[in-house]
Amino acid sequence: MKYRFPMKHTASLRNIKLTVAYDGTAYHGFQRQANHVLTIQAVMEERLAKIFGHRLQISGSGRTDSGVHAYGQVVSFFTDGTIPVLRIPPAAKSLLPPDIVVLSAEEVDPDFDARWSAKSKLYSYKIYQGKVADPFLRNYAWHFHHPLDVPAMHAAAQIIVGTHDFSAFRGAGSADVHPIRTIMETSCYQEGAVVECTFWGTGFLYHMVRNLVGTLVSVGRGKQSKQEFSQILASLDRRQAGITAPAQGLYLQKVLY
Amino acid sequence: MKYRFPMKHTASLRNIKLTVAYDGTAYHGFQRQANHVLTIQAVMEERLAKIFGHRLQISGSGRTDSGVHAYGQVVSFFTDGTIPVLRIPPAAKSLLPPDIVVLSAEEVDPDFDARWSAKSKLYSYKIYQGKVADPFLRNYAWHFHHPLDVPAMHAAAQIIVGTHDFSAFRGAGSADVHPIRTIMETSCYQEGAVVECTFWGTGFLYHMVRNLVGTLVSVGRGKQSKQEFSQILASLDRRQAGITAPAQGLYLQKVLY
Repeated sequence: MKYRFPMKHTASLRNIKLTVAYDGTAYHGFQRQANHVLTIQAVMEERLAKIFGHRLQISGSGRTDSGVHAYGQVVSFFTDGTIPVLRIPPAAKSLLPPDIVVLSAEEVDPDFDARWSAKSKLYSYKIYQGKVADPFLRNYAWHFHHPLDVPAMHAAAQIIVGTHDFSAFRGAGSADVHPIRTIMETSCYQEGAVVECTFWGTGFLYHMVRNLVGTLVSVGRGKQSKQEFSQILASLDRRQAGITAPAQGLYLQKVLY
Repeated sequence: MKYRFPMKHTASLRNIKLTVAYDGTAYHGFQRQANHVLTIQAVMEERLAKIFGHRLQISGSGRTDSGVHAYGQVVSFFTDGTIPVLRIPPAAKSLLPPDIVVLSAEEVDPDFDARWSAKSKLYSYKIYQGKVADPFLRNYAWHFHHPLDVPAMHAAAQIIVGTHDFSAFRGAGSADVHPIRTIMETSCYQEGAVVECTFWGTGFLYHMVRNLVGTLVSVGRGKQSKQEFSQILASLDRRQAGITAPAQGLYLQKVLY
């Protein structure tokens, strides 16, 4: 079934903002790709078309990689469809697969764009410390059974608070021109067998959170000191930093506007 | 690759007990079936054969249905393989899929059998009460968004403690001849948005826990009283009881010997 695109720049078009949670396990990331690869965006655009009665193109707050999860991804799009916003989440529930859930929908100003209007984002990363793997966490945390000095990780993480050139933590293939980002708050804490690190910042370079976690884990194992962590940041050299932590521990928690 | 079966009734055979956790989402239950259906037992027997160097047949403490999970399933089997028991969990990790984890292994007396030696079992059932579905719980809890009176469910559940004829909660197609079972302890409590009901008993009829939960939910919604729950148990009539709660909320927590 082919749908038309809605006419653009018409006063009657509504701008819709959706907050979306998804389990990224089955998807090749958020962003639509060529060749019918299964992505969150492709599935959402296809299924939402049935609700709104026309083809649509969603703008996401940002990409998430293959296997990365979201509790609070935000997307926006224009529609001339007439469904009341309160009816969008239940309608989406009946059409979307159960690993993608529309948590809420609202109508927003025409100049709102999920990507360009985002002021900051909160990411979290889960590390499972159990001696033996937990089959229920295999897709939802990094299983790392060596002991970690979590207070040392927390202390080292404070170094990135502020505005810095994060080139040392930028993944290869990053499309971002400017490597300067501002981190407002970060923490590492332990609850039971799970260590969680959170990062609240104005924006993040490609693989930045996963590279930060991979390097903080070196600190947690006692292989690097807080001072060495600081030197890695200052080096602007990706080769100085640690490994890229695996995708399945990463969660886009919240986008702030 | 075809393996021989180990010789039986030889003094040198070791009897091995494994405690196993698995995410049952991808499997058609525990028990091996015809026609190469994917089951926990079939996968374990095939992969363990590579560790022990011979075909083997595992005895499980009991079946779990399609989609049902286990934190502490127990299996046992005989082997003339020489691998030390401490090396079995890591060897199993490298051969089993990540949704089946051998938590521990020990050598036990020759007369131990995971099924026949079991004295009692502990099951738990998770109900997710969030207003909107949680994509991360879709395979791990029953999403039931109507409010539940959990203390009323807990009070009604106490009626099954003791030795009773559980015919009213026995699933169709049950192979058990005798419907008499003893429940030692049961509880329903809430933690955040998750209601968990636990059942500790000497044994359980087919679908018994899921039928009990389906009926307790009627009590939790105020549709049935504690007294009516008691009458359902006494009726011995499956048609009096509630629905069968869905499989994905059920966990075999522990088997006691």
